[in-house]
Amino acid sequence: MLIEGRHHRTIWPLGEGGQGPVRIIDQTRLPHDLAFVDLEGLEDAAVAIETMQVRGAPLIGATAAYGVALAVRADPSDAALEAALARLLRTRPTAVNLRWALERVGNALRPLPPERRGARAFALAAAVCDEDVAICRAIGDHGLALIAAIAAEKPKGEPVNVLTHCNAGWLATIDWGTATAPVYRAQEAGIPVHVWVDETRPRSQGAALTAYELAEQGVPHTVIVDNLGGHLMQHGRVDLCIVGTDRTTRTGDVCNKIGTYLKALAAHDNGVPFYVALPSTTIDWRIGDGVREIPIEERSGDEVSWVAGRTDDGRIERVRVTPATSPALNYGFDVTPARLVTGLVTERGVAPASAEGLAGLFPEAA
Amino acid sequence: MLIEGRHHRTIWPLGEGGQGPVRIIDQTRLPHDLAFVDLEGLEDAAVAIETMQVRGAPLIGATAAYGVALAVRADPSDAALEAALARLLRTRPTAVNLRWALERVGNALRPLPPERRGARAFALAAAVCDEDVAICRAIGDHGLALIAAIAAEKPKGEPVNVLTHCNAGWLATIDWGTATAPVYRAQEAGIPVHVWVDETRPRSQGAALTAYELAEQGVPHTVIVDNLGGHLMQHGRVDLCIVGTDRTTRTGDVCNKIGTYLKALAAHDNGVPFYVALPSTTIDWRIGDGVREIPIEERSGDEVSWVAGRTDDGRIERVRVTPATSPALNYGFDVTPARLVTGLVTERGVAPASAEGLAGLFPEAA
Repeated sequence: MLIEGRHHRTIWPLGEGGQGPVRIIDQTRLPHDLAFVDLEGLEDAAVAIETMQVRGAPLIGATAAYGVALAVRADPSDAALEAALARLLRTRPTAVNLRWALERVGNALRPLPPERRGARAFALAAAVCDEDVAICRAIGDHGLALIAAIAAEKPKGEPVNVLTHCNAGWLATIDWGTATAPVYRAQEAGIPVHVWVDETRPRSQGAALTAYELAEQGVPHTVIVDNLGGHLMQHGRVDLCIVGTDRTTRTGDVCNKIGTYLKALAAHDNGVPFYVALPSTTIDWRIGDGVREIPIEERSGDEVSWVAGRTDDGRIERVRVTPATSPALNYGFDVTPARLVTGLVTERGVAPASAEGLAGLFPEAA
Repeated sequence: MLIEGRHHRTIWPLGEGGQGPVRIIDQTRLPHDLAFVDLEGLEDAAVAIETMQVRGAPLIGATAAYGVALAVRADPSDAALEAALARLLRTRPTAVNLRWALERVGNALRPLPPERRGARAFALAAAVCDEDVAICRAIGDHGLALIAAIAAEKPKGEPVNVLTHCNAGWLATIDWGTATAPVYRAQEAGIPVHVWVDETRPRSQGAALTAYELAEQGVPHTVIVDNLGGHLMQHGRVDLCIVGTDRTTRTGDVCNKIGTYLKALAAHDNGVPFYVALPSTTIDWRIGDGVREIPIEERSGDEVSWVAGRTDDGRIERVRVTPATSPALNYGFDVTPARLVTGLVTERGVAPASAEGLAGLFPEAA
């Protein structure tokens, strides 16, 4: 999608034939600075994931694939390959398609003679990226139909109001995004849309990233605190919610950014459709009960106690918002039970959030 | 309650016989700086309310009462009295007991000859404060019984986990607080309590004020983002919620800080008791449908886009967390329907959140 009017992806290799570094956007510096980082080797890729220079399930998967490629380019031995896979798998515990991407790349590289692994790994990483773009575009098409149906019921010219939480935008993927793909497709189709952007504390990915990408793409939007969405839904100001997911159970429970569950409750209480957009790679077919079985990443309480941003005169500062002696607790995700989810928007269409619904669309996996 | 080990109220007159200024704590500078402000006249009092140096329904009412006293001390004429009442009434539209306090003071002063109004107004303001302390203490007694009942069901020594939103603490009142009074009474009674403190964006009164007063009072607590409470309730880590209210309908709908409704939904979904603590002065007996009838204060979007705090090296800074081109929307309150409220903890006892429940406790008003 667009940054400063030019099309970008979130990750791409520099140079010809897998000889150069892999370039990413340093998302920790958005929305205030547009800065790129060149990943030269495995450790750069792992650290980029750990420090959230890249984040979002699909982009984490793609970065991990490129991380393996950088590793085997430097040392194509079996030992180096296995060490790279293990190092990257440790970076984030929740993202299920991190594991999926690493298994795919590992399974493809292990049978090869070491001297052929480097080129193959770069080709695989590029394929992971291209496939993700196609998947997100397909999610956008299916979601577009939902938005178009709502637009058809509204007075002509009145925007469809979409609420989203966190960033499941193109910055979380390679292009298009998951939750935002229907919005961008609606924009292309000339359907007026307006997005309520949940700030998404503690890391404020909504305020920092979703608002940024919508602004760069020219989509009307308004940033709101995470506390506001329920009130807006009570007053008919949200037509539908669309969020992403880091992991989806085979029964349709959705593990997404902390606070998603609260918005799903409000949507349910007010009859607002609540959709979750996802590539099928985020479905964990082994898990049936999301609330009980999905491990939730606990992160530093400092993310709660400190807020970073830009001062009036342009400096980036970090300020403490709590008393110095008050502890803080920080979980990254929560689980929204399938009963609160209107539908799962996948690359193959919209499924009911249930075991039957997902098995119907993905019979080969269920 | 305690600040730096010494007992304080939130507002008190200096000097003898209503000759000095009225001192307040500048709550906009907490938790980083403890600073006092001396209100010398009407305009100081009005600005203190408008800029939220004082906030919280009971403290706003008390500050308004002292504001009238300062005004009539300077000019006791009918015209000056009416102008003072009108000026103060405009400061905050949602707080129903601001109106209550001003009506009470106005009705008492109008019949008096001007020369007697000054002393009488200071005595009235002091009475408003003393009565609020007694009311909050009574709320604490009734809420203590709820906490004690939960403690009796838990293994001995395990704390009762209370979740609260915003600051309905002693800093919002004169002393004790409303939502916090049961917690402080439980602490006095030797019942172990632990408080989950919702940050409460956009103004972060939970992180700044509730955490501060609990820390100063030595009550164990943990600051959490507004997004986390639902997850904690799903996992049995919240025993009860207690929040305050700025306005309560005669039917038991509760207008409180934005985001309260989301926590009430989560409590309801997980079988966690959700209590609202309130002095009966916040009941608006004229209103039956809170969601439709209570006007909600819209505040500047800058409160969403900018966050203030203290840097590592001790400076107070304000940082922007959104792209410069992204608009923000900011409503101060939402309405929690009575169906989600387990009980209303008033100075006369715990009432069901219903017209019958409130009429049973306050037959003279209903």
